[in-house]
Amino acid sequence: MSRDVAARLVAALGDSVDTSTASREAARADKSGHAAEGLPIAVVHAASVADVQETLRIATATSTPVVPRGAGTGLAGAANTGHGEISLSLRGMNRILEVRPDDLLAVVEPGILNADLNAALAEHGLWWAPDPASRAISTVGGNIATGAGGLLCAKYGVVRDAVLGVDLVLADGRLLRLGHRSVKGVTGLDLTSLVIGSEGVLGVVVAATLKLRRLIPGEVRTLSATFADVRSAAAASAAVTASGVQPAIQELMDAASLARTHAFLGLPPVPPGSAQLLLQTDGPAATAEAEAIAAVLTAAGGVVTLARGDAESEQLLLIRRSMHPAWEQAGTTLIEDVSVPRSALPAMFDAIADLERRYGIAIPTVAHAGDGNLHPNFVFDGPEVPEEIWRAAGELFQAALALGGTLTGEHGVGVLKRRWLADELGEDQWELQRQIARVFDPAGILNPGKVFTP
Amino acid sequence: MSRDVAARLVAALGDSVDTSTASREAARADKSGHAAEGLPIAVVHAASVADVQETLRIATATSTPVVPRGAGTGLAGAANTGHGEISLSLRGMNRILEVRPDDLLAVVEPGILNADLNAALAEHGLWWAPDPASRAISTVGGNIATGAGGLLCAKYGVVRDAVLGVDLVLADGRLLRLGHRSVKGVTGLDLTSLVIGSEGVLGVVVAATLKLRRLIPGEVRTLSATFADVRSAAAASAAVTASGVQPAIQELMDAASLARTHAFLGLPPVPPGSAQLLLQTDGPAATAEAEAIAAVLTAAGGVVTLARGDAESEQLLLIRRSMHPAWEQAGTTLIEDVSVPRSALPAMFDAIADLERRYGIAIPTVAHAGDGNLHPNFVFDGPEVPEEIWRAAGELFQAALALGGTLTGEHGVGVLKRRWLADELGEDQWELQRQIARVFDPAGILNPGKVFTP
Repeated sequence: MSRDVAARLVAALGDSVDTSTASREAARADKSGHAAEGLPIAVVHAASVADVQETLRIATATSTPVVPRGAGTGLAGAANTGHGEISLSLRGMNRILEVRPDDLLAVVEPGILNADLNAALAEHGLWWAPDPASRAISTVGGNIATGAGGLLCAKYGVVRDAVLGVDLVLADGRLLRLGHRSVKGVTGLDLTSLVIGSEGVLGVVVAATLKLRRLIPGEVRTLSATFADVRSAAAASAAVTASGVQPAIQELMDAASLARTHAFLGLPPVPPGSAQLLLQTDGPAATAEAEAIAAVLTAAGGVVTLARGDAESEQLLLIRRSMHPAWEQAGTTLIEDVSVPRSALPAMFDAIADLERRYGIAIPTVAHAGDGNLHPNFVFDGPEVPEEIWRAAGELFQAALALGGTLTGEHGVGVLKRRWLADELGEDQWELQRQIARVFDPAGILNPGKVFTP
Repeated sequence: MSRDVAARLVAALGDSVDTSTASREAARADKSGHAAEGLPIAVVHAASVADVQETLRIATATSTPVVPRGAGTGLAGAANTGHGEISLSLRGMNRILEVRPDDLLAVVEPGILNADLNAALAEHGLWWAPDPASRAISTVGGNIATGAGGLLCAKYGVVRDAVLGVDLVLADGRLLRLGHRSVKGVTGLDLTSLVIGSEGVLGVVVAATLKLRRLIPGEVRTLSATFADVRSAAAASAAVTASGVQPAIQELMDAASLARTHAFLGLPPVPPGSAQLLLQTDGPAATAEAEAIAAVLTAAGGVVTLARGDAESEQLLLIRRSMHPAWEQAGTTLIEDVSVPRSALPAMFDAIADLERRYGIAIPTVAHAGDGNLHPNFVFDGPEVPEEIWRAAGELFQAALALGGTLTGEHGVGVLKRRWLADELGEDQWELQRQIARVFDPAGILNPGKVFTP
């Protein structure tokens, strides 16, 4: 059966169909470290909308599951492809089809890297605001599929705020054009928003009309503040938000993260237990805002460093950026992604400290503190997440929900969180969402087993 | 049958059920002037979520259509309720349940007026950005149901950008809580966005968690510029957008609108054919931006007036605000609502001028020029839109679609535009949207005949 499917794909798509063991092996996993069981039938490297449509027609005709894939940088396993499945790679569809500075929009294929797009847009004085930490290696299509966030979201929004329309190929190969090229548009149901964050279960995004911004004029100011403990840092972060100034970046690193990153970079050690906030302001009032924030942080007990010039600014940012490389040396990392209302940040850090005590493990955590999104990291040996770690993660999710938060702020559900999805949605909404997915994909061949439990 | 339904409603909900002829008559129409055929069974004045649930349970049990209604200020007939239907008024559910300045969110019932909400939020230094022209008389629930826009959208976004979650009662009376209280959240499909702009066909919104902004500090600067003709004004507006400055307000009034409004206000007449732009800047760079815009407008051939102080600013704004009262004196008005990419604004005005010539009618037009949203007005005698006017409107819609635009930027489809919906969506997407609505409302009792043709 799988051999028949591969033969039909090759007959229709020729060299675009890759059945090498190395490529099929690579398609099993994403950056979560988790991998699907077995090897996929083939990897189809789509070069055009027609390639995507043909792949889906063959998949429908043969009842073969299809897993869309960008750069494979996801952290929830949504692009992982296993036995009996086709991996449909959009990575090669990476053209910028149109840039309209006058309309502040661009039309792009899904496989372009976020950073490559922004490099091209910068020549027009424009940018696309979503900035996941993976932006140098993740695709715009993947950003849309996960509803990605990033560091700048509190000020500049998430992917949902920055997409006007998508072209979507359905499971049966039909092409739909969803959304608008205009700023406003309310014709019928907003299916564009429904596709954003749907992780490949509704259709395959083959083009996107993106809402752009003009590059922010003026200088950027960066500052850090060190606190005696993480709770003080979280409270200071909430004080910044409450003060009414809106930083562009507002990151928090807990003690374990800060200590390990300092060691990794060969910087002088920080006092035990101390945590750090890193903030950046931009726009015409950048300096005044940075000074106002410095005053709030000092009043909250922080030791503040205000960078003078770009070099010092880069040095401060480097500490935040080095967090994941530093932890990768310690073992396998399960990067979690809960999000809570901003005011609940201190309480969420208390819940994490409680989990650390009860499970006898370290859960080093960084947070996009300006929007209440935390990335607690579980570090362990070997490729599989131990069941004990999953139990701790399960308690973490329940704590976030109890604080009015969510399982996932920006990484998505994929396979790794599907067992907790109904806890957040409730059974009625879970079932309704499942039925909506069935309207798009009646035969259930699009990314089955992702988001929803089978 | 209708008598049975009324009796069941009264038995369950008592005095909340209003069967007076005056109330039933009022529920037939909205501000479009269009009215449904016949009188509804009753108007239910819901005071609680339980009232809404009970009404829908009775409606489901008796297969009775239900039409949700806010303040009845819609312009597409979506809240119009006719023979054999229940009008479900949410207007009495108007409490603010929670305001959280630290989390920049508010939880409100749907019946609160937009302006009342913003007056209450101002005491906390906060505001909810969506500002439809109807804000003094329209409800937040109605704003959500239509996906409302307004004057400030190019800079501050539309309703879709300002809602974190909604509580939704389904056709069978079950209550779902959709969305998040956190800034980020990608758990499952984004049903909150799907509900925004769905015009009552998916469920009844009984509460909303709104994303707030802090009041913008600093002064506001207002300026107007008069041009020899509307095309020059449209081109100048595009030049402002292209210059990279982002005004908060950027309105355009064509010659007919400007002349009539001047006469209505008793102002000196303007030169025949002349059109006007009205702009406002805000934030810390308001004055510098207003001066930059004035230079662009002068270079584009405009005669610029930069208001000195609040009184002059109000005088300039009054001209724009008086447009609809001025036209109401001329006859019945069909207010249209096409939206195009900003760069297509001059071409859209050309298309309107062409329609005026070919049909021998005036189509006075104002535009939210900063976001490409035009309100062409068809003025006629009597309550019914003449078929000739509908033919002209149909050509207007086709012209907008041909320019990459949309049938409706912010008013919605309702009954008045449903016959053109498939022209924009395509048959495949139209059918898919219809099926999604059926997932929420399998029996088809929620606002039947609205948005989708029966």
